[in-house]
Amino acid sequence: MKLFRYGQPGQEKPGILIDEIKYDISAFISNYDEAFFETDGLKRVADLVKQKPEGLVRLNGDVRLGSAVARPSKIVCVGLNYKDHAAEVGAALPKEPVIFIKSNSALNGPYDDIVIPQGSEKTDWETEFAMVIGKKASYLKEEQVKDYLAGYVLHNDVSERAFMFERNGTWDKGKGCDTFAPIGPYLVTTDEIPDTGNLHVWMSLNGKLMQNGTTADMIFNPFYLVAYITQFMTLYPGDVVSTGSPAGSGAGFKPPVFLKPGDLVECGIDGLGSQRQRVKAYTGV
Amino acid sequence: MKLFRYGQPGQEKPGILIDEIKYDISAFISNYDEAFFETDGLKRVADLVKQKPEGLVRLNGDVRLGSAVARPSKIVCVGLNYKDHAAEVGAALPKEPVIFIKSNSALNGPYDDIVIPQGSEKTDWETEFAMVIGKKASYLKEEQVKDYLAGYVLHNDVSERAFMFERNGTWDKGKGCDTFAPIGPYLVTTDEIPDTGNLHVWMSLNGKLMQNGTTADMIFNPFYLVAYITQFMTLYPGDVVSTGSPAGSGAGFKPPVFLKPGDLVECGIDGLGSQRQRVKAYTGV
Repeated sequence: MKLFRYGQPGQEKPGILIDEIKYDISAFISNYDEAFFETDGLKRVADLVKQKPEGLVRLNGDVRLGSAVARPSKIVCVGLNYKDHAAEVGAALPKEPVIFIKSNSALNGPYDDIVIPQGSEKTDWETEFAMVIGKKASYLKEEQVKDYLAGYVLHNDVSERAFMFERNGTWDKGKGCDTFAPIGPYLVTTDEIPDTGNLHVWMSLNGKLMQNGTTADMIFNPFYLVAYITQFMTLYPGDVVSTGSPAGSGAGFKPPVFLKPGDLVECGIDGLGSQRQRVKAYTGV
Repeated sequence: MKLFRYGQPGQEKPGILIDEIKYDISAFISNYDEAFFETDGLKRVADLVKQKPEGLVRLNGDVRLGSAVARPSKIVCVGLNYKDHAAEVGAALPKEPVIFIKSNSALNGPYDDIVIPQGSEKTDWETEFAMVIGKKASYLKEEQVKDYLAGYVLHNDVSERAFMFERNGTWDKGKGCDTFAPIGPYLVTTDEIPDTGNLHVWMSLNGKLMQNGTTADMIFNPFYLVAYITQFMTLYPGDVVSTGSPAGSGAGFKPPVFLKPGDLVECGIDGLGSQRQRVKAYTGV
């Protein structure tokens, strides 16, 4: 199944894609949030899809899509997880996964604008394969992980390189800026992608292909990563785990390429759909 | 005012301390969470305290206290913010604040056990003065900050030093382990502490004083810190900002002192009350 959320920011309703047609299911489901996943919500959606009751309202025309999942308790990201990306930035292959927490205030819709923060000159993109947790997960083994997932989702892990590396401290300053986590368009349930091991990951800037990688190039596989993270903290239903980005983010070019107002960002991963963001300058709250 | 939350983990109800007596106010207020702060909840509590209606139920006997605030959207912490602490660990004084996000799954009650994670040998304490955000805050100036605060709260920023420094990556692996964020006992409204500039900060391990500092020794003051963080991310109502810890955490001793099962941790800050945690080993979920 492919689940989405649509409507104005902060007022998104849940929807479901059936045969490429969008349906509103807010008559039955309030949101794709922690409570939804915790109470076997995916099973309820599957039943609705089977029954196609009256309340399943077909959506006509264009609707704004929000993040495919409601604001999670946390977004845990993995850095330097592709061999080609580690090589392009001159980093040694990590012996253990590099993890960090991305502020969930960064959450954004997949087609919303990316806003360059005040004072930023090095806003960058990172197309990532991400997972949504389905059940409370602590001290998992890798082979248990798939049973704990609700599905997969596309994530552009937008990153401010100067805030990350030149402002003293951890990466968190440059990872959690507002609009820096476009998530969606769809939460794709795990059954739709039986093998996550060789998915095409791409990104284009103003029509020019910048990232052109594959999940086959990951250093640590997605299920290993979830198991690893749960050795350090409990993951909650609805939490997002993002698995790093292949070569071709702006910082990897010589000279580096960073986003500027007016730029068009497009990115996608096999089976997860694609995103499209216009870049704009910060102009006030 | 002093607000607290009591009851079983995950089912805490809101309470208020009046003349050192605890009252349940769950007949009027559902929780001290984002929605509460966002809708001027403190004003409603102040009115209740004034009116003392029937529904204000006096609590008798001992009750378990949970975190003084419900799970926030995020906990943003500041590292190396005391001159004496930077000195004891041999770190240069930071030119800009070091910030990181602590997983909110670490949230715990002020008297609950601290659980040493599996594989941990360097679990440590850090007594901290923390603030709770009252209103959505973005790009604040320092002089605006006080108007955006709901109050102050005591936080033990429990930290696993090997997970932070020896496991590759950011500090986040060693900061967000379950039970690593005891918060409370009280959310103390800002009017109760007109001057936060010279508060005693202390911690004792098995009765022996280990931290004995003062907020006067901070490098960046609390209001500056909140303003600074809002340059990088929006803070939401109910979010917690923790301001770093003075000298005397376990890693600062020679040889270092880390927590072991059975240890008794007590800590406190003038005006915010004190915490008391028994340390135990992880024994399963």
